[in-house]
Amino acid sequence: VNFASDNTTGAADEILAAITAANKGRAMPYGNDDLTRRVEKKISEVFEAEAAVFLLATGTAANALALSVMAPPFGAVYCQAEAHVNVDECGAPEFYTSGAKLLPLEGVDGKITVAELEEALLRADPAVHSVQPAAISLTQATEAGTVYTVDEVRAITAVARKAGLGVHMDGARFANAVQSLGCAPADVTWRAGVDVLSFGATKNGALAAEAVVIFEPALAKDFAYRRKRGGHLFSKMRFVAAQWDAYLRDDRWLHWAGHANAMAVRLATGLIKVPGARFSFPVEANELFVSLPDKVIDGLKKDGFEFYVWPAADGATPIRLVTAFDTLSADVDALIEAAQNHS
Amino acid sequence: VNFASDNTTGAADEILAAITAANKGRAMPYGNDDLTRRVEKKISEVFEAEAAVFLLATGTAANALALSVMAPPFGAVYCQAEAHVNVDECGAPEFYTSGAKLLPLEGVDGKITVAELEEALLRADPAVHSVQPAAISLTQATEAGTVYTVDEVRAITAVARKAGLGVHMDGARFANAVQSLGCAPADVTWRAGVDVLSFGATKNGALAAEAVVIFEPALAKDFAYRRKRGGHLFSKMRFVAAQWDAYLRDDRWLHWAGHANAMAVRLATGLIKVPGARFSFPVEANELFVSLPDKVIDGLKKDGFEFYVWPAADGATPIRLVTAFDTLSADVDALIEAAQNHS
Amino acid sequence: VNFASDNTTGAADEILAAITAANKGRAMPYGNDDLTRRVEKKISEVFEAEAAVFLLATGTAANALALSVMAPPFGAVYCQAEAHVNVDECGAPEFYTSGAKLLPLEGVDGKITVAELEEALLRADPAVHSVQPAAISLTQATEAGTVYTVDEVRAITAVARKAGLGVHMDGARFANAVQSLGCAPADVTWRAGVDVLSFGATKNGALAAEAVVIFEPALAKDFAYRRKRGGHLFSKMRFVAAQWDAYLRDDRWLHWAGHANAMAVRLATGLIKVPGARFSFPVEANELFVSLPDKVIDGLKKDGFEFYVWPAADGATPIRLVTAFDTLSADVDALIEAAQNHS
Amino acid sequence: VNFASDNTTGAADEILAAITAANKGRAMPYGNDDLTRRVEKKISEVFEAEAAVFLLATGTAANALALSVMAPPFGAVYCQAEAHVNVDECGAPEFYTSGAKLLPLEGVDGKITVAELEEALLRADPAVHSVQPAAISLTQATEAGTVYTVDEVRAITAVARKAGLGVHMDGARFANAVQSLGCAPADVTWRAGVDVLSFGATKNGALAAEAVVIFEPALAKDFAYRRKRGGHLFSKMRFVAAQWDAYLRDDRWLHWAGHANAMAVRLATGLIKVPGARFSFPVEANELFVSLPDKVIDGLKKDGFEFYVWPAADGATPIRLVTAFDTLSADVDALIEAAQNHS
Repeated sequence: VNFASDNTTGAADEILAAITAANKGRAMPYGNDDLTRRVEKKISEVFEAEAAVFLLATGTAANALALSVMAPPFGAVYCQAEAHVNVDECGAPEFYTSGAKLLPLEGVDGKITVAELEEALLRADPAVHSVQPAAISLTQATEAGTVYTVDEVRAITAVARKAGLGVHMDGARFANAVQSLGCAPADVTWRAGVDVLSFGATKNGALAAEAVVIFEPALAKDFAYRRKRGGHLFSKMRFVAAQWDAYLRDDRWLHWAGHANAMAVRLATGLIKVPGARFSFPVEANELFVSLPDKVIDGLKKDGFEFYVWPAADGATPIRLVTAFDTLSADVDALIEAAQNHS
Repeated sequence: VNFASDNTTGAADEILAAITAANKGRAMPYGNDDLTRRVEKKISEVFEAEAAVFLLATGTAANALALSVMAPPFGAVYCQAEAHVNVDECGAPEFYTSGAKLLPLEGVDGKITVAELEEALLRADPAVHSVQPAAISLTQATEAGTVYTVDEVRAITAVARKAGLGVHMDGARFANAVQSLGCAPADVTWRAGVDVLSFGATKNGALAAEAVVIFEPALAKDFAYRRKRGGHLFSKMRFVAAQWDAYLRDDRWLHWAGHANAMAVRLATGLIKVPGARFSFPVEANELFVSLPDKVIDGLKKDGFEFYVWPAADGATPIRLVTAFDTLSADVDALIEAAQNHS
Repeated sequence: VNFASDNTTGAADEILAAITAANKGRAMPYGNDDLTRRVEKKISEVFEAEAAVFLLATGTAANALALSVMAPPFGAVYCQAEAHVNVDECGAPEFYTSGAKLLPLEGVDGKITVAELEEALLRADPAVHSVQPAAISLTQATEAGTVYTVDEVRAITAVARKAGLGVHMDGARFANAVQSLGCAPADVTWRAGVDVLSFGATKNGALAAEAVVIFEPALAKDFAYRRKRGGHLFSKMRFVAAQWDAYLRDDRWLHWAGHANAMAVRLATGLIKVPGARFSFPVEANELFVSLPDKVIDGLKKDGFEFYVWPAADGATPIRLVTAFDTLSADVDALIEAAQNHS
Repeated sequence: VNFASDNTTGAADEILAAITAANKGRAMPYGNDDLTRRVEKKISEVFEAEAAVFLLATGTAANALALSVMAPPFGAVYCQAEAHVNVDECGAPEFYTSGAKLLPLEGVDGKITVAELEEALLRADPAVHSVQPAAISLTQATEAGTVYTVDEVRAITAVARKAGLGVHMDGARFANAVQSLGCAPADVTWRAGVDVLSFGATKNGALAAEAVVIFEPALAKDFAYRRKRGGHLFSKMRFVAAQWDAYLRDDRWLHWAGHANAMAVRLATGLIKVPGARFSFPVEANELFVSLPDKVIDGLKKDGFEFYVWPAADGATPIRLVTAFDTLSADVDALIEAAQNHS
């Protein structure tokens, strides 16, 4: 049973059905088809905004392209040290921004703090010798499985705004965050000061569907050219659009994320009772990091449970367990039971 | 009826069925799944080679990444002036190569000639003031709907080899070319001196599936990092692999391209009888460029036939008609009949 | 005797004296010294403008940095085919613009024509598949030794302006052009629609001194960061400034260029009498391209005259003769006499 | 009296004299002159090596170009956190490497330690999601005014070598380091495992003269093209070469650096007696960082001494004092006396 990542999942049946349904006759290529236009509008409506929406198929492309309209080549982008843009994209942000520099902040529980951002901005030197603060990237839900509250986002973006920074949100797991917060998607994005969102669907049931949602119109101006030049404009775009159409219909995206989150809570609730269990972070989305006695970890592995050991900066070696839209409660219960048996 | 492009098509049913079939349980992400591994091997076998194969989802990404391992930032890439890399990718090759320069050659019937390549290489200056010849990119089938013969490819690559150039083949319509030539895929690629092939499936029935096939091992060394950093590594890669699996099975790719080519011949055979019809190029694949009297063109448009007018360098304004794996012979016949009626 | 290029010259004595004079005590580094500030202002005054001025030390840096504030990575820059930016900078413009594409225009006598620019702009496609027209670069004096008249510049910039293009002027030999035209520097730059000038001094008597003069304030905003990041900000900037100070004092720059131009006219006047002499272009600055019988060319070489043979597109093989601020009239006369003797 | 930086100095008289002497007649441009060739050879000889030498005029250009031949766009370059390449070059290394990532190490006394490098390399992940370790950059003398011993360099390069990293040394103050160590230049470079050295002269008496010295031939292959494309190839190169010629003659470079180092020791010896004085780092080259009571610092400022306050990571606010080839011992003594008077 696989708890290694939500990207080991397949696609939800509804997503595949939508792809198949979209395969009717000919359609204008490169996003000039009706379905794509409709979906772009629909995404805008989900955010109660006049947003510019660009469909994509990988999260790395979404993030790197999003940053490319916010940071000049001599710009600095603040992010949490473990952020995907900083450590898991093989330099894509540097590539798409033509060389901007990511400046990592340590954060608490995977979340950047206002205090450290303010301090970093104080240290920034406007002289020509230094890269210039240009943007901040928040990951929502974070790589630690935590979620910025609306107030936390607001507080950070207020600092960013005052310093003239653009605000990017990496929402590869945005659905999990929104579901966790119980707020409107707008509340934790543009209403809270976010300029550009990488809105992910792939980890939450889509086959390969992401979107960049630009709330600040000036930043949208040349995005289409950048997408094309990155090789990210799909000729048969309707098949990306179809996924989004199905994903957003009847709030499926939130239901699926809600299921994943619930499974994470169920896991946590069970594992907390295992002697020696220690959680690295609050469990607020669909990832949990928990230290367990070696014999428990070995036992789980032997039983066929799959997960990563995730060494922490403090020397701890918790395991990371990720739930998803398709995680079975029976599998969760089995893992809990196994952990208890091996302890 | 749409003759505008083969990218207005949907996906073949077999492709969609394969995607659906691949959606079984969990799988290792990012191409570490069994299906991707198997398909990479299968593509290699199609070429009777030990090639390094990298799956992608857009042709622009395939071309730009392919060139990025052949041309340094101060390199020059020779290509035919109308090549997709030169005019239809919004600078993607320049982006991925960090600034290499595309040097267009005029060609005859959409094909680079040995003579002009030799002349261009003679003009090349090894002094530091000039970009340095690094690669040549051949489009097979060409943007003119013509096909390089095996001997033509050999002759060009011999010149390239002598000058130390890498040889790239943009095979967005490679299936149409191979089918037209009736040769083995290896014959017109590595056996004829090609180092790297952009092998397209999207235009010929896939949903979004391309591959870069690297025959020269030294060029494959860092491709995986470049793909990731470009944002082109799919987490749920099995769904790209599934398309390739279905595409290659039972030589479907050649059958489909064969159908498209046959429809092009059928179109040409019919249109040639329309008074005033003049073909710009030999019809060797699935595209034809034909000048027709204005009243014929207007009539076809009124009848609902879709196609592009394609202004030529010599001032002519032929229309471009593209056939595909799903073109109906009835539609071909209807266009021919309409053209005759309007003439 | 060297007629190969004006870059084989040394520095004028006045330039060296100024460098030596600037070597007094300590000074603020990186252009924050008084002399640099004063020179920046002085250059502005030469143009009767409130220009932003950035000192540099190579012409390639000046051109590439100038284009980098005018063309986005997906932009197109029109230039004459033989322009230095297109053929003599090893891809520097592509490097500094992060991949913009230079689109060569053929021109007449080394000068872009309004007609071909208009035609090129008509062909430009706003769709995402194409690089987008962003700038035009004019070389003044041109690589053919000709000079755009003020009216010619105005006519071209009017077309550029209408199309939203920025206008760059490569003035590596700007002094020769201004002297030839007898106009105010402002007349042929900002008053004629030029946004950014690469103002060269090196070829005309300086040791290594160039400047980018930005007339359009919006384009100056981030230039300083780009200069630094290119490695072109000198710590001991006063020594570049000192060259400019001496160069502009008492109109030396125009006197020196005037001498070079006069020597070119003297050469032309003499060579035109050599049987078989054919000039490729009007002689309007300090370069001349002249076809001569082989025996004459061989004779000149044997006599120790140095120059380049400069193959033309039409198959002719004129020699290029370049005069400079330090060319001796005796050497000019000697070359003329030798040519006549060998004919 | 200026102790702010060694880049506020002018040029040594011998340097200016050499520039003037080089201004004799015509010379081949772009480094094809005899003097440049001779100087390249001379620099090689200083290192008792067959090195490839490339003259430049700024340290940022030297560093960024050096790294560009060692790190691919998806590469990582380890450096000490305060290294010039990391914080003072406005992203030049990222620019020239097309996006490589600098990974800062904390170091001790401004020097990277073997332990932290080993740990960083252990954390490096060969998977495609991460940038790949490509090079390490050592600053010699360091930004802290300390000097790596030969053994320290050897120990670090041994680790680097085992991990396949290239080794760059930023020698903006290389003369001060060599003088401090009393070793042969070769001992602390190629014999100690350094592949590429940025060899600075500007801070130590030159006007604008740097060199990249490449000991590993494979890395030199395309450097000339990269230099040109960066806009760093000077047409009148002889004037850069002349500076080097004078700089190296009669071991002036070491004498000048020796003087600067001696002045730093003299300063330190005097200041250590000021009550409350605390040195941040050992004084091993020409920079010292010393915390002094506020009243002393204020007094020094009032007396007209110029220097920077240099906030440290630990909250201390030492001042930085930099000596140079032209620092007068009287000025050193005056500062010491003033400090004592104000304490």
